[in-house]
Amino acid sequence: MDLDRDGAALTAQLVDIPSVSGEEGPLADAIEGALRPMPHLAVHRDGNVVVARTMLGRPERVILAGHLDTVPIADNLPSRTEGSRLYGCGTTDMKSGVAVQLRLAASLTSPGRDVTYVFYDCEEVAAERNGLLRLSRTSPELLDGDFAVLMEPSSGEIEAGCQGTLRAEVTAAGRRAHTARSWMGRNAIHEAGDILGVLRAYSPREPDVDGLRYHEGLNAVAIRGGVAGNVVPDECVVTVNYRFAPDRDAAQAEDFVRSLFSAWPVTVLDVADGARPGLAHPAAAAFVAATGAAPRAKLGWTDVARFAALGVPAVNYGPGISEIAHTPDEYVETGAIAACEARLRAWLSG
Amino acid sequence: MDLDRDGAALTAQLVDIPSVSGEEGPLADAIEGALRPMPHLAVHRDGNVVVARTMLGRPERVILAGHLDTVPIADNLPSRTEGSRLYGCGTTDMKSGVAVQLRLAASLTSPGRDVTYVFYDCEEVAAERNGLLRLSRTSPELLDGDFAVLMEPSSGEIEAGCQGTLRAEVTAAGRRAHTARSWMGRNAIHEAGDILGVLRAYSPREPDVDGLRYHEGLNAVAIRGGVAGNVVPDECVVTVNYRFAPDRDAAQAEDFVRSLFSAWPVTVLDVADGARPGLAHPAAAAFVAATGAAPRAKLGWTDVARFAALGVPAVNYGPGISEIAHTPDEYVETGAIAACEARLRAWLSG
Repeated sequence: MDLDRDGAALTAQLVDIPSVSGEEGPLADAIEGALRPMPHLAVHRDGNVVVARTMLGRPERVILAGHLDTVPIADNLPSRTEGSRLYGCGTTDMKSGVAVQLRLAASLTSPGRDVTYVFYDCEEVAAERNGLLRLSRTSPELLDGDFAVLMEPSSGEIEAGCQGTLRAEVTAAGRRAHTARSWMGRNAIHEAGDILGVLRAYSPREPDVDGLRYHEGLNAVAIRGGVAGNVVPDECVVTVNYRFAPDRDAAQAEDFVRSLFSAWPVTVLDVADGARPGLAHPAAAAFVAATGAAPRAKLGWTDVARFAALGVPAVNYGPGISEIAHTPDEYVETGAIAACEARLRAWLSG
Repeated sequence: MDLDRDGAALTAQLVDIPSVSGEEGPLADAIEGALRPMPHLAVHRDGNVVVARTMLGRPERVILAGHLDTVPIADNLPSRTEGSRLYGCGTTDMKSGVAVQLRLAASLTSPGRDVTYVFYDCEEVAAERNGLLRLSRTSPELLDGDFAVLMEPSSGEIEAGCQGTLRAEVTAAGRRAHTARSWMGRNAIHEAGDILGVLRAYSPREPDVDGLRYHEGLNAVAIRGGVAGNVVPDECVVTVNYRFAPDRDAAQAEDFVRSLFSAWPVTVLDVADGARPGLAHPAAAAFVAATGAAPRAKLGWTDVARFAALGVPAVNYGPGISEIAHTPDEYVETGAIAACEARLRAWLSG
């Protein structure tokens, strides 16, 4: 792996080492092999997580983090260039961001801020497999810092904080009967119409948090009910997903959902706190100034929230395009890779 | 098998030969073995169907039909007697009726009407396995007759005709989106609330057909939708079951359902015509007079409809209790077995 290549060429090289979630070993090996010999970096390997740090004793430390894995390949490898675009699995989400990390790690031998470069596995799959979560439990000291930038696709915009997410089951009950004498029972699926009515009447909050506008959402993501083709069903379960702005924590989100559906039993399946933007920290403010981008609220949940849980403010900022992430035709503008690298280099050198 | 025993003892003997659907062989063998030697009966065997007929050349022929199979055993064998009740799998549905058939077949050597006794398999499972359906296709001449009595549990009442049944899928469509930006999509489960609204607003018909009052019903029997926990779903399918009175045929039932849900795609899964009561036929009128019972409408679909499709009016009339059919604690009143036998004997001898 040649870290002297430009960002686009390096992205292509990274994309052509397939690394679907769970199969990041070869790519992690290549990255470790490229960084380990560099005397200005302390390199740590944990499974398929690679952490490389400058140890200059600077007053501030910032983190650049990116995941190595991709969604499954969809007949979109190897990478190919068409005009200004580089196509292929992982180009936008997020090997172009990883290329920027690697370029900076190799060339910034004496940055103005100490930098921790984190490359991790299994971001695209269930949370319990996430390499960043594992590292935060086994070696949290490696994630110490004042501010973190996740190199997730953000079209070169700063996406700050993130919304939380809660999933819960709301259950309508009934009484079984033969459908030939349905008035002997009570139909739980019909009853669930009232649950759907609550969802349809819901009006989303759009609160300002630290100057950024968030936008909540409440949706049924699953519904199931039915016993047999001739039976009035006695249960219908609606699974709802509440996306909540970071001015609410998990407990408040749960209270809200329980009060909204107070007429029915509610079982919370999982909940993850969001993260406030945290742009007041000096390192964050300097980052905003250096990039010249106006921060906007991040609506989707990302690993930004893991840093927030560790007390590290974090933003998403990367050259990829979030709208086309996970599509077979994902691509990245090669110019965006260079621009992202230049802005981060200016910030870290300052 | 001793057909000289009283009906209750014979029922117990039949119950103690297990015959869950698909495993009726030993019971069919026992019945064939008991009837085959009787000179007044012509016996026909087809798989696990046994047909025994008097061949006296009477001007009328009537059919007594009963199924041999039961729902799965639920720790309720062998049979046991408590006071006036005989408990056990199949006591009420419907080996008490089969016992009455066998007692009449053995003893009525010269009935006033020719009688066809039909014992068949696989009534409790999918229609394509039903022994009566198979016989109606392979040997319909064995089911010729002027009137049929199905010995299904009816508490000694005459349940005439039956309602038809139609199942259909009604599909709400939407547009997928990430739930963090749900306003980019359209939630099909929320949309299905309108389908449930139609079901809840439905007001059942209760038409008189040939003097009997039927009672229709329209129910959701299943609902499904959902892509993933973070995706606004683009499809929600509601399965509805329409039970329709026998003044409507299958085509009219389908038209009704399609017009009710005209805002959505409707796919008909299956439909079975009902059967008009058909009590105007002289043999039916004589049956009603002999039993002294007031006919009522049969709401559930039964094999009565198969006889109707062959042009044979039919009723349900048996000693079992339909409300406790298929329950682990099913039983039959032993007195009801004797009463049912006495009334049928009077009718057939007349």
